[in-house]
Amino acid sequence: MNPLDAFKKYMIDQTLSLVYIDNPDTIAYLTGFYSNPHERVLALLITADSTQLLVPKLEETEARSYDAIDEVTGYKDEENPWAIFKESVAEDGLFNTIGIESDYLVVDRYHQLMSLFPDASFKSVTSYLQNMKVIKSGEEILIMKEAGHLADEALRVGMDALSTGITEQEVVAVIEYEMKKLGVKEMSFDTMVLFGDHAASPHGTPGDRKLQAGELVLFDLGVVYNGYTSDVTRTVSYGDPSPKLKELYSIVLSAQKTAQAAVRPGITAGELDAAARQIITESGYGDYFTHRLGHGLGRSVHEFPNIAPGVTIPIQTGMCFSIEPGIYIEGTAGIRIEDCLAVTDKGAAPFTQTTKELIVLPVKE
Amino acid sequence: MNPLDAFKKYMIDQTLSLVYIDNPDTIAYLTGFYSNPHERVLALLITADSTQLLVPKLEETEARSYDAIDEVTGYKDEENPWAIFKESVAEDGLFNTIGIESDYLVVDRYHQLMSLFPDASFKSVTSYLQNMKVIKSGEEILIMKEAGHLADEALRVGMDALSTGITEQEVVAVIEYEMKKLGVKEMSFDTMVLFGDHAASPHGTPGDRKLQAGELVLFDLGVVYNGYTSDVTRTVSYGDPSPKLKELYSIVLSAQKTAQAAVRPGITAGELDAAARQIITESGYGDYFTHRLGHGLGRSVHEFPNIAPGVTIPIQTGMCFSIEPGIYIEGTAGIRIEDCLAVTDKGAAPFTQTTKELIVLPVKE
Repeated sequence: MNPLDAFKKYMIDQTLSLVYIDNPDTIAYLTGFYSNPHERVLALLITADSTQLLVPKLEETEARSYDAIDEVTGYKDEENPWAIFKESVAEDGLFNTIGIESDYLVVDRYHQLMSLFPDASFKSVTSYLQNMKVIKSGEEILIMKEAGHLADEALRVGMDALSTGITEQEVVAVIEYEMKKLGVKEMSFDTMVLFGDHAASPHGTPGDRKLQAGELVLFDLGVVYNGYTSDVTRTVSYGDPSPKLKELYSIVLSAQKTAQAAVRPGITAGELDAAARQIITESGYGDYFTHRLGHGLGRSVHEFPNIAPGVTIPIQTGMCFSIEPGIYIEGTAGIRIEDCLAVTDKGAAPFTQTTKELIVLPVKE
Repeated sequence: MNPLDAFKKYMIDQTLSLVYIDNPDTIAYLTGFYSNPHERVLALLITADSTQLLVPKLEETEARSYDAIDEVTGYKDEENPWAIFKESVAEDGLFNTIGIESDYLVVDRYHQLMSLFPDASFKSVTSYLQNMKVIKSGEEILIMKEAGHLADEALRVGMDALSTGITEQEVVAVIEYEMKKLGVKEMSFDTMVLFGDHAASPHGTPGDRKLQAGELVLFDLGVVYNGYTSDVTRTVSYGDPSPKLKELYSIVLSAQKTAQAAVRPGITAGELDAAARQIITESGYGDYFTHRLGHGLGRSVHEFPNIAPGVTIPIQTGMCFSIEPGIYIEGTAGIRIEDCLAVTDKGAAPFTQTTKELIVLPVKE
C-alpha cells in the first residue's frame, strides 16, 4: 500500500474527517510533490474523498503533474489562502475531528484552523506519520544508497584536495563544486571540514584555518539525492598522527564498529547508544563524548528516531539512522566516525563504504 | 537602545513576566548568538531580571561568550530540556502572562509551555518583533551592503562562466565555488541559473539544460554575510536577443525602475506593487507577472513586509526589501530584475550595483 492510501486508512480508523499538512517533507512523502514555500502557505488537505493541495500560483503547474493529488488550487500573493482553503473544503461537509502535525504546525496557523472550524476538535497525527516514515521502503533505501555513494565520492574529493596551507573553507568549496558538477543540487547540510583541535567543537564552522602536517581532518557531509539525504563523517590524518591521536582514533573506531555490529531488529535505540558509550567511558573519555550516538534520516537529515541514552524504541527492519560516536578534547582534537545505515533482518547495511580504518594521507607541500 | 533592552521595555509595558523565544533568527537578533539547533530545543527565556539561554550541550561554550545572555544552561541529549526549563525559571516567581512567537512556535511546544505553566495566559509577541526587526539600524544596513556587494561579485562570476553548451548546474557550481573561496559560508538560498524558456517557471530548478546562443539567462542568488542575507536577480542575454525578448526586457526594466524610484517613506507597500504592475499590465502582460513585487529581508531572506497588491503598510526609513517584477511566458522566456534596497529619507539605496540595462554577452563557443 502506498503511503497516502495507508494514511487514508488510518484516517478512517481514527475517524478523522480532515487532515491539514503543511510540512513540505510530509507533503512530498505522501504525494511525491516537493516544494519549499518559504513563508507562503503550501497545504495538503486530505479528506475521505479527495486529496487537495493549496499552493502558491507559482507552483500550480508543477503540482498538477502529480497523480496522488486530486485537486490543485493555486492562489495569488494578493489572495488569502485561508479563505480559499475554507471554500475548497466547504463542499465536503462538516469536520468533527481534524488531524494536524503538531510538531510542525505553528500556533498562528493552528489558530487560523480553529477559527475556520470552530466546532472541530484537533488531534495530532505526528506520531502516526513518524512511525510510517521511520520504516523505509526498498525503493527509498535504494535512493538513500545512491545518496550515500555520492557522499563517499565527496569524501574522496575532500581527501584529494588536502595540502599544506589549504584552508578548511577552500576544501569545502572544492567538495561542493565537484558535487554540483556531478549533478548534486543540494548538500544535506553545510559541509563541515575541520582541522586539528578546531574539530573539538562538534558543531564547528569551517573557516580560514590552514592545514598543517600531523593534523587530523574531520569531514562531516552529505548530499540530497532524489529528495533523500545522506550523512557521513570520517576523520583522517594528514601526515603521520601522534600516538595519542592514534589511540583516541582507535577508541572511537571500536565504539562505532561495536554499535554498528549490534544493530538488529529488537535491540533498543538506547542499547545501541550504550554499546558505543560504554567503550568510550571505559577508556576514560566518557565526558568527551558529548552527544547522542545518532539520529534517524530520510527526506530530512534529522528525523525520528533518536539514538540516545535511555531511548526505549525498538529498532525495526527498514529503519535508517546514523551511528556516530566521537571524542572531543579542547586544544587537542575532535574525532568522529559516522555511517548511516538501513536495518535489515541480518543487521546493519551501511549507505557509505569509505573505510573506517585510520587513513593516513601523504603530506603535499 | 539595543534590541534586547528595547524588547525588555516592551515586556514591562505589556506586563509580560516571561517570554519564550525559539526562533534562531530572533535569538541572534536579540543576543548576537546564532545557532541552528535542528530538532533540538534552543530557547531564550527572558524575564524582567535575566536573559537565559537553554542550549544543547554542544553549543554551551560558544553561547557563554555572548554578553547579552546572563545565564547559559547546557543540556545533554539524554536530558529533558523542558524539565530543566521549568527549574531554571522557577526561582523567578510566578508567570501570569507569557509571550510567545506565534508565527514560529509549534503546537507541541506550545502545549509543553501550557502544561508547565497551567495558570498562565499566552500572548503573541510576533507583531512587535516584526515591527522591531523591520527597521534596520545603520550597522545592519552596512552589513547588508557588503552582502549585496558579494552578490554583485557572484553575478560577475556567473556571467563570465557562460559559454555555449555549459549547463545551468555547472554555472551554479562555478558561482558557489568562487563565493566559498571568497569566504562566503552560505548562500541565502539555492542559487538559481535558468536558460531560455526554462526561466518561465519563476521557481525553476537549475538542471542539465545546455546554453545556446540567443538565449536569456536568469540569475537569482544571494549570500549570507555576518548573518545577513542578500538577494539579487539579473536576466542577461547570451548573444544577440530577438526583438521580442528585447521588448519584454524593456517592459520589466521600466517596471522595476519605476517602482524603485517611487520608494520613499510614507508610500504604502501596495502602492509600490501597483507602480510596477501597472506598467506591465498596460503593456499587455499583466497575466504574466504572477507574483508579488517583493519581500522584506534581513537575517532571513524572506521577512516582513510583503510588497504585494493591497498591502497598506507604510514604507519607513530603515526598511529593507526587494523590488522584483517579472514576466514569465511558457515556451518563450522568463525575465526578472531585482534589487534589494534600504529605504532612506531620500528614497531607495540599493544593495546591488550591477547594471540593470540589458547586458548582451559575447557568445563563447
